[in-house]
Amino acid sequence: MIKIHWHPYSTYSRRVMIALLEKHIPHELVTVDMAARKHREPEYLSVNPYGRVPTLEEDGFLLYESNAILTYLEATHPEPALVPADARGRAVVDMHMRLCDLQMARQAGIIIFPKRFLPKERWDEKAMAQAKGEIERHLAILDSQLDGREYLVADRYSLAEVSYTPFVQFLPVMEIAPPPAVAAWVARMLDRPSARQTAPAQ
Amino acid sequence: MIKIHWHPYSTYSRRVMIALLEKHIPHELVTVDMAARKHREPEYLSVNPYGRVPTLEEDGFLLYESNAILTYLEATHPEPALVPADARGRAVVDMHMRLCDLQMARQAGIIIFPKRFLPKERWDEKAMAQAKGEIERHLAILDSQLDGREYLVADRYSLAEVSYTPFVQFLPVMEIAPPPAVAAWVARMLDRPSARQTAPAQ
Repeated sequence: MIKIHWHPYSTYSRRVMIALLEKHIPHELVTVDMAARKHREPEYLSVNPYGRVPTLEEDGFLLYESNAILTYLEATHPEPALVPADARGRAVVDMHMRLCDLQMARQAGIIIFPKRFLPKERWDEKAMAQAKGEIERHLAILDSQLDGREYLVADRYSLAEVSYTPFVQFLPVMEIAPPPAVAAWVARMLDRPSARQTAPAQ
Repeated sequence: MIKIHWHPYSTYSRRVMIALLEKHIPHELVTVDMAARKHREPEYLSVNPYGRVPTLEEDGFLLYESNAILTYLEATHPEPALVPADARGRAVVDMHMRLCDLQMARQAGIIIFPKRFLPKERWDEKAMAQAKGEIERHLAILDSQLDGREYLVADRYSLAEVSYTPFVQFLPVMEIAPPPAVAAWVARMLDRPSARQTAPAQ
């Protein structure tokens, strides 16, 4: 049985939850009590030395980095497929997953975490404004790529969308108004049953 | 014929060069004249909207993000293999490649670029010190994982090492003294013919 160490507020954990639902994969959830800083204690650091969630555990096999977990689930549970069948299509999904981490997820964390969990006097507003600008420039690129399409790759829902869903959920919190093709894509993703079932509490 | 848009000073491009050599893949190089800011002009932005190198081009197919290119080359040119045969081994290689980007490559760029190309009065020394601390904490984790092993995954040279090679090359420039198991691993990687042939000019 696949065990997922996670936290319900974790955007990265939500990626894995969505993939597990989309693929109907039986699993067991282990909540890491991050409020009590259990993720910084030796027991969890022996599972994930970075002290982050999610981590997949399966018969003693440990894997972290949410996009690596998604790729592993795809390799081990190929149906229903969340990547195209051909090498080029798979490569483009992989590229978009990496770009989601590098150009959006990290920057979103800089904005979302303080806005959700810290009093305003502790916000680093300069860093937050810079992160917002980076996301806006990235969304402008996605907008031109999405123009006339429903999804990023081969016009079908893929792991690229699984990666993006938890982060685009917070565009309103980040006060980012997405350009039109991105806005339609976001609405499409958030309307999926796997997204609705994993939506964070407001 | 695979065409690689690259620049000889680009650490990310060097990853792809190493994989091409390791796999004996015929290719054509197109140098993007970054000094003349050609990477910011519409012609190159139509190849890679982020204006970065490397980009792979093959019969009109375009792929960027160096680790996505490495994964694509592995899928399309599986011999000699630079990943293990099993899904778990492949997943751990994938995880390390992502961690290289998230915990080392970005931070290395913050330090290396100014040190190589900018006068000292333009250095952001606070950001550089923070990046150095992040790399040092990451190398401490790698050190415990490498203890008693020659390579990160399944004790064989893999795409994880291909990803790391261009960045660990600059540890001396970054004034980072690696812990012992990392130091031995770095020496092993940099001694490979593919690393020697692609070593940057001093």
